[in-house]
Amino acid sequence: MTWTDTAADKVERLEKTIPAEWRLAAPPTDKNVIDYPKTAKILTDKELEITGSSAVELVAQITTGKLSAVEVTTAFSKRAAIAHQLTNCALELFPDVALERAKYLDDYYTKNGKALGPLHGLPISLKDQFRIKGIETSMGYVSWIGKVETGNSTLVDLLLNAGAVLHVKTSVPQSLMFGETINNIIGRTVNPRNKNMSCGGSSGGEGALVSLRGSLIGVGTDIGGSVRIPAAFNFLYGLRPSHGRLPYYGAANSMAGQETIHSVLGPLCHSMADLRLFMTSVLEQQPWLYDSKVIPMPWRQSEEDAVNKKIQNKSLTIGFYSFDGLVHAQPPIQRGIETAVSALKAAGHRVEPWKVYKPEVGLPLLEKIFGADGGADIYGDIEKSGEPALPNFSANVPKRPKMDLNDTWAMNLDKWQYQCQYLASIREFEAETGVELDAIIAPVAPHATVKHDQYKYVGFSGLVNLLDFTSVVVPVTFADQAVDVEISDFEPANELDAAVQADYDAEVYHGAPVAVQVIGRRLSEEKTMSIAAELGRLLGNTIVS
Amino acid sequence: MTWTDTAADKVERLEKTIPAEWRLAAPPTDKNVIDYPKTAKILTDKELEITGSSAVELVAQITTGKLSAVEVTTAFSKRAAIAHQLTNCALELFPDVALERAKYLDDYYTKNGKALGPLHGLPISLKDQFRIKGIETSMGYVSWIGKVETGNSTLVDLLLNAGAVLHVKTSVPQSLMFGETINNIIGRTVNPRNKNMSCGGSSGGEGALVSLRGSLIGVGTDIGGSVRIPAAFNFLYGLRPSHGRLPYYGAANSMAGQETIHSVLGPLCHSMADLRLFMTSVLEQQPWLYDSKVIPMPWRQSEEDAVNKKIQNKSLTIGFYSFDGLVHAQPPIQRGIETAVSALKAAGHRVEPWKVYKPEVGLPLLEKIFGADGGADIYGDIEKSGEPALPNFSANVPKRPKMDLNDTWAMNLDKWQYQCQYLASIREFEAETGVELDAIIAPVAPHATVKHDQYKYVGFSGLVNLLDFTSVVVPVTFADQAVDVEISDFEPANELDAAVQADYDAEVYHGAPVAVQVIGRRLSEEKTMSIAAELGRLLGNTIVS
Repeated sequence: MTWTDTAADKVERLEKTIPAEWRLAAPPTDKNVIDYPKTAKILTDKELEITGSSAVELVAQITTGKLSAVEVTTAFSKRAAIAHQLTNCALELFPDVALERAKYLDDYYTKNGKALGPLHGLPISLKDQFRIKGIETSMGYVSWIGKVETGNSTLVDLLLNAGAVLHVKTSVPQSLMFGETINNIIGRTVNPRNKNMSCGGSSGGEGALVSLRGSLIGVGTDIGGSVRIPAAFNFLYGLRPSHGRLPYYGAANSMAGQETIHSVLGPLCHSMADLRLFMTSVLEQQPWLYDSKVIPMPWRQSEEDAVNKKIQNKSLTIGFYSFDGLVHAQPPIQRGIETAVSALKAAGHRVEPWKVYKPEVGLPLLEKIFGADGGADIYGDIEKSGEPALPNFSANVPKRPKMDLNDTWAMNLDKWQYQCQYLASIREFEAETGVELDAIIAPVAPHATVKHDQYKYVGFSGLVNLLDFTSVVVPVTFADQAVDVEISDFEPANELDAAVQADYDAEVYHGAPVAVQVIGRRLSEEKTMSIAAELGRLLGNTIVS
Repeated sequence: MTWTDTAADKVERLEKTIPAEWRLAAPPTDKNVIDYPKTAKILTDKELEITGSSAVELVAQITTGKLSAVEVTTAFSKRAAIAHQLTNCALELFPDVALERAKYLDDYYTKNGKALGPLHGLPISLKDQFRIKGIETSMGYVSWIGKVETGNSTLVDLLLNAGAVLHVKTSVPQSLMFGETINNIIGRTVNPRNKNMSCGGSSGGEGALVSLRGSLIGVGTDIGGSVRIPAAFNFLYGLRPSHGRLPYYGAANSMAGQETIHSVLGPLCHSMADLRLFMTSVLEQQPWLYDSKVIPMPWRQSEEDAVNKKIQNKSLTIGFYSFDGLVHAQPPIQRGIETAVSALKAAGHRVEPWKVYKPEVGLPLLEKIFGADGGADIYGDIEKSGEPALPNFSANVPKRPKMDLNDTWAMNLDKWQYQCQYLASIREFEAETGVELDAIIAPVAPHATVKHDQYKYVGFSGLVNLLDFTSVVVPVTFADQAVDVEISDFEPANELDAAVQADYDAEVYHGAPVAVQVIGRRLSEEKTMSIAAELGRLLGNTIVS
């Protein structure tokens, strides 16, 4: 078989998993399909109600017998099938497996009179890096097609222990190293709010699926922004925890074993409450007993309580920037930052401009780290099948000679030094102001979504990975051509800055989700999540559908 | 200058730092000099009393004005000078700097009526990897001689913040990758209990110095056993914390930037109370605000309390082994393990044999990791000056071609897999026994000290580094030729096992310190330290001199 045959066969198998009654008779031609599931006449009213709920509400209802796991799983399986037909977001749909699991959970509940765990009966979707026994993991590589897994990733085991149902694995860009989602198997995943715009990447399938409520908790991974970008582009909350908090063991990856910057997994959700449910449920399983890289750090209620007290006392100190010293955010994102800043100020918190420590040192380091093997790993997996390399990720992972091993050790030290110098810049801020810096608000990407194939600058998200800081994406508003006008007298800091800004077009971006990220120190998940939740509350931005 | 001139000049400068009145008139010819400081007539009775105290007692006295920092610093500076003359343990002696610091602290106390911090006035010694502004760091390399530091390692800053006095930097083996201590600058450091035997390494200077009470808290580093081996060889307690607990930033190292197995720093002390003082004092400084690799994990009193309750209830479950599947410990160490096991059993705890998970996978991985760059870093630093490479470390770091970068990524994955499989073997044990495994007792080295240049097997200590587990060395007893007889019908598991056992000679090893290590899970410092303290209490082994 040629690679195109292999890919076509996979697509055919994928399509067959959608029953006839879940198929769209006439797919919509609108560019915005976010509300289409409500009018597609495939979900019943009750199923629309179920999929319109929050994960927290659903779990409460399933674990008190008000809803069955089968009902809930059916609803989300149907809605996921619709989401896939609308945006091309899935690499694996497995409603049969999910329903069998749901039946098991319902039986368990009947027999034992209690839930299996805190996620009992809740369908959760996974980026196609997570391995589920009996299901393929292609991760967007044609050469991986047909690899049926014989075991689970640790996260999968723990989600099942916690009672979850798994029903979908979502699409990724070839190589994973890109902020959009396109591969040679199923092609491009689009943004459900505007098909002409990207859903983000590399967890872009999750972004599209979760925003269409094909699941309420989607698990992505993030090495340069891959959870946060699709969260931001789809008006979702998204968490990039620090490395060592959640179990990554047994997940597939590109450049696996590269550990200068670790990829981490994190959830994309409609609300901070759902995101918190995911975190507490996984940590309750004591992932450190299974994955050696996970720190034995249960959910720290004391940390959450401490920051909530600060929030109550209106005594947070928050830094912010929309220009990181290299690139300016486009107008909608600048307004997003201003909106967040105003909301926090109005609530009585202290908000101060933040200067990013030497971005001219940090960002080239990021590129160097991602390009250390000269693309050997990624191009190897691409070339095995004969599929062509897509041009999108080549800027992030150029094909070039591998670095010398000792040079990579020096690079590890450079990264460590940069991280420590960044910490010093925080201490300096704190010494000057006399207060503790609680978080920093910054863009996730320079743009509110992005035109297809135009993602140029990953520095806003990637710096967080370089620092291994905790970051939570908070949706803010939507781009508005009447307000977010192009800057006529823009003075670019450099060529890249000019190119990024030149891509802005108020009309094209109109209606695109605008988000910010709330960045906290390393391993500050409880604190940073609480601050993000407070910002979301202040903005009034938890969409319920 | 030739390298020998450079080294000789360094030795001359080192010798000059010892005032005439601190010089031994006639150095003893006895092989055991452990008690010589008491009879050398250099320390006054009060100074002997001070240096015979514990760090906890001293800090209590200095911070209540009963002793001055100058008195204490003078006593330890003198005793350190004697220790150096007896064992050749120091690369830097700087009593002047220490006394100036002590005066500052005394003034501070007078002015403010309180201590600067929890280590106020306590002299602490450092392995010659830690950088102190104004002092050289040669780390045993002739080519590094003359490098006067312009800044401090993070640990040094934090110890100073905590009120410590720094007075000595101790010797290391060339390359650091060896369990004894010999270099081309000052030659060999010997064991104060038997000059014919090794003091251990690579923190061997600390082992010799602390056992002679030239300081009560010595800071070493450990990538394959380098804190634990000298602790064991010198009847000291020693902690190898897991990576990320203590601040290593700014310390010199060989193979710096190699991060598959991180070197960690840890203390060597005469008692668990002193060791705990070091840990709580450093953690109180919030090292994670300075060093990005440190986890924000303060001293967890709740963990300590929980295990202490288990200890009180006599409900610990402890595994043990003296054969790791590859090498058998020599008779004194076998007896040491049995002694520890008996003590725990007699106290009512549960003790079970432990089977090391696939040592034939773990140990070769350790060698591969340490040899990844084919010695390029180490031989580079050696060859710069023309000094010869010592044969001792070549087994650990052979000169060979560097590994390919992608092969090192695969090696990282192999390590992660081994770690997770080891965790699975613990879960299996727990499932079978129905109880939680609290710790494992194992040899630190196959031998109680070692004959010079005969260190052959680092697997007992190194496995802990591969797993990144927490480990505490507990002194148990001394080798006794009447009891620890050679095993006449020894059946070796392999050639290495035969060679290690063949090295045993009951007469030669007579009187050598016997220790075990108490191994706990990753980042279990509070728990594992408490179990080690309990074992020490049961054995009655806190020597006060």
